[in-house]
Amino acid sequence: MNFDEITRTRRAVNFFDQNREVPRELLDRMIELAARAPSSFNLQPWRLMVLRDAEEKARLRKLAWDQPKVTEAPVVLIVMADKTGWQAGNPTLEKNWTEMVRSGAMEEAQRDWFLDAAKSLYGRSPEASLAFAVKNAAFFAMGLMYAATSLGLDTHPMDGFDHEGVRKAFDISGDDWVPLLLAVGYRDPRAETAPPKWRKSVAEITGGG
Amino acid sequence: MNFDEITRTRRAVNFFDQNREVPRELLDRMIELAARAPSSFNLQPWRLMVLRDAEEKARLRKLAWDQPKVTEAPVVLIVMADKTGWQAGNPTLEKNWTEMVRSGAMEEAQRDWFLDAAKSLYGRSPEASLAFAVKNAAFFAMGLMYAATSLGLDTHPMDGFDHEGVRKAFDISGDDWVPLLLAVGYRDPRAETAPPKWRKSVAEITGGG
Repeated sequence: MNFDEITRTRRAVNFFDQNREVPRELLDRMIELAARAPSSFNLQPWRLMVLRDAEEKARLRKLAWDQPKVTEAPVVLIVMADKTGWQAGNPTLEKNWTEMVRSGAMEEAQRDWFLDAAKSLYGRSPEASLAFAVKNAAFFAMGLMYAATSLGLDTHPMDGFDHEGVRKAFDISGDDWVPLLLAVGYRDPRAETAPPKWRKSVAEITGGG
Repeated sequence: MNFDEITRTRRAVNFFDQNREVPRELLDRMIELAARAPSSFNLQPWRLMVLRDAEEKARLRKLAWDQPKVTEAPVVLIVMADKTGWQAGNPTLEKNWTEMVRSGAMEEAQRDWFLDAAKSLYGRSPEASLAFAVKNAAFFAMGLMYAATSLGLDTHPMDGFDHEGVRKAFDISGDDWVPLLLAVGYRDPRAETAPPKWRKSVAEITGGG
């Protein structure tokens, strides 16, 4: 499937086939493809909580406007964005630093420069830390949706949930923002998919420039 | 090119071919493909400023850590994310509303529900408005990068710039957040591309769950 086909085939699917599981290997492959997304300083401030258990999904559904797809989709992902991913001591930052030095992309002597640069960009204000986390996690999440389509899977990104409730119920740290929930499965072959929604034209996006 | 190839071919390219323009039609196609991204309530709170003019790129480069690629890439996009994209009266929201009613996806009587739902999710705090804008614009921007790769183009997403400076110099409203600049062109065939950087494993992303 080429990218034009992927973008036309990807739809936010409301009705999932409840009799069709998503094999672990397929989900892993979807995550692996999405994880090739770029990120600020390669800091990859994204994580996923993978829900498959019926009881856990029911718990989430109560906090997510009671949307049936939360329990009907075989897999629901809670996407987490780490607002502290630019701080020294953050496990992913430290792993990234070690790998960059190992590969020769950075030298030990550049550590202060690296940390200061990340801090000046992402630690300059709470807004900047939030935008850093959300932007990069959204790069990753968009990749999850396109990867899913390329693997024959369907998804539905969800915003309608109680952020504080989900954080508490699933023990998510205050350092993380939850930009979306993502239902993953196969569309119900008996359900009709609505026609694609209106999109802004290129001229509307660029101001005609 | 399938999605696996797209994600492997897409690299943040540092050196652009300065003798190769990006045709207008190709850039339009790239934007059109990316604009098929999903967004919260289909609100598409993204816009682009397209810079091709040498003088304008030089002005931006001064505000972007003097990175040579800002002037060397034939096109640089300023990506803008509208924090007010959920408010009644917002031009894109109103266009979206008209199109939803026209297509039968919504009925006129649902307008209050629609506006209240959007407000409760994205207008509940300044953080929520920022996260709404940045998340959706990042979905779109990730699509721009994958679309570019699928069309034979190269990109480089940039964070290293003076946000307030760019806003002032390019007359960008305080309602917009600028999540990234995106250089677009063709990689310089004489320059070496560094090996792909380390990525978190699936187990690191999911906590092994």
